[in-house]
Amino acid sequence: MIVGTVAFDAIETPFGKKDKIVGGAATYIALAASQFNVDSAIVSVVGDDFPKSYLEFLETKNIDTSGIQVIPNGKTFFWSGKYYNDLNSRDTLATELNVLADFKPIVPENFLQPDFLMLGNLHPSVQMEVIRQIPKRPKLVVLDTMNYWMNNAWDELMEVLKKIDVITINDEEARQLSGEYSLVKAAQKIFALGPKYVVIKKGEHGALLFYDGKVFFAPALPLEEVFDPTGAGDTFAGGFIGYLAGTHDISFENMKRGVIYGSNLASFNVEKFGTQRMEYLTKPEISDRLNEFKQLTQFDIELQ
Amino acid sequence: MIVGTVAFDAIETPFGKKDKIVGGAATYIALAASQFNVDSAIVSVVGDDFPKSYLEFLETKNIDTSGIQVIPNGKTFFWSGKYYNDLNSRDTLATELNVLADFKPIVPENFLQPDFLMLGNLHPSVQMEVIRQIPKRPKLVVLDTMNYWMNNAWDELMEVLKKIDVITINDEEARQLSGEYSLVKAAQKIFALGPKYVVIKKGEHGALLFYDGKVFFAPALPLEEVFDPTGAGDTFAGGFIGYLAGTHDISFENMKRGVIYGSNLASFNVEKFGTQRMEYLTKPEISDRLNEFKQLTQFDIELQ
Repeated sequence: MIVGTVAFDAIETPFGKKDKIVGGAATYIALAASQFNVDSAIVSVVGDDFPKSYLEFLETKNIDTSGIQVIPNGKTFFWSGKYYNDLNSRDTLATELNVLADFKPIVPENFLQPDFLMLGNLHPSVQMEVIRQIPKRPKLVVLDTMNYWMNNAWDELMEVLKKIDVITINDEEARQLSGEYSLVKAAQKIFALGPKYVVIKKGEHGALLFYDGKVFFAPALPLEEVFDPTGAGDTFAGGFIGYLAGTHDISFENMKRGVIYGSNLASFNVEKFGTQRMEYLTKPEISDRLNEFKQLTQFDIELQ
Repeated sequence: MIVGTVAFDAIETPFGKKDKIVGGAATYIALAASQFNVDSAIVSVVGDDFPKSYLEFLETKNIDTSGIQVIPNGKTFFWSGKYYNDLNSRDTLATELNVLADFKPIVPENFLQPDFLMLGNLHPSVQMEVIRQIPKRPKLVVLDTMNYWMNNAWDELMEVLKKIDVITINDEEARQLSGEYSLVKAAQKIFALGPKYVVIKKGEHGALLFYDGKVFFAPALPLEEVFDPTGAGDTFAGGFIGYLAGTHDISFENMKRGVIYGSNLASFNVEKFGTQRMEYLTKPEISDRLNEFKQLTQFDIELQ
């Protein structure tokens, strides 16, 4: 089960501009997870300006959209951003919460026993409300958040962090959350806040998975061109939890594979604007790229 | 054979300050390479203010120092720099070329047939002069350079790049040398300048090895603390060529191991000020850390 935004985005990158395309954390997460033959469902909210055809498209990917509330006469959440030449820095040009402002998540009855729960980036009190509605604790709860909630809802964030297993955040957010510059020290401080697993996303520099004194690193694939980084972090998270859900295995060894798959899918996501690339991504393409990841990282040295 | 500076450094980091310690690219390279049971020799220049005891110490590591010219009444090259909190940015406070200003490299007769030649960061015309003095082409020539020479000796740099096999540079330098932001595209442009292998060092984000359409990535070890990054790039290069020289194998598979060893040794170098850590580094420590690199990067996914 995936909780998160379903949205409209306007995006400008050095390669072009899109005025109004489908976006939102839950959309990216669900599209990534759909690659792993899992039954998934989104809990979210949109206005009645959101295209019914896109919800139907998500259904074709085995994503249950019946938990997406459609608010009559409501306007869908809208985000607009502009990326600069290095694609690592961006300005948010507009954030119109619209129907998200009064969002009260309602987990449909048939979703009340998810094995895997993904809490996409949203107000931590919404994330907490979803946890409260689920009677039996899922096998794994993954939470994504961002600096905005650290600045504006610190106490609520601290509460929800106590209830989860895995946090996925980027490097700057990990530093802000922990007050530590070193990511190794940051992970140690974040463990003390609740999560047993800390995943730190470093964009083009890959991602680190910390657990119980151990650390694993998934590189980003070196790409000739990054077209649009929007949704790469959500795609990473969706690939991670989707792989774990598809294999029903939450061992650390399998989580290593999960972050490799997350990085794998994110490397596709950035090839086109918005969700475009993920919409027609095929399993053979993912498998070929997995081979590239192996060639990129695997070496053979005998320990003496 | 190693060509490069042997110097005094003054370093300030958030962890402390050293007014005058031994540094220089050739020193770091030679200390790293000395871990691989190779017969190495330095071609360089110092003033008679340089401690004879340090040259004797290098000799105990099987580093021949007879090619280091000692200039009577000369002052050793001096560099001073200050690092800021993130240790990724630094200011150069002083560069006093001293005896380096008139350095005419002289390769001693007994060094004239090196199998492996490391051209440390120096004026490209000095690097070229060393290549000229060696009658038989070495098995492998590795060159390190920096943005300073791109700004001030472009034509000479272009000449020497035609004569080498491997270039090691950092990400910003690769971008400047190629005019490309994407490191994949940068490597392609740099191939066209001469090198068959391009190694791009990304500091705390690891290093990429490009060759013939293939790419391999060696991560940096995530560290709790980086004490002083001075010499990390030179140590990386010394570990790389030292491992290749010690194994007499310049296949791409072995170069992958070389960049892992380079990253391994660099992770030690940054633990203490200057060359301090490398002076007492032991083989069992390197072997233990190699195991950490394996755990950090190796995963097991069946390709479908």
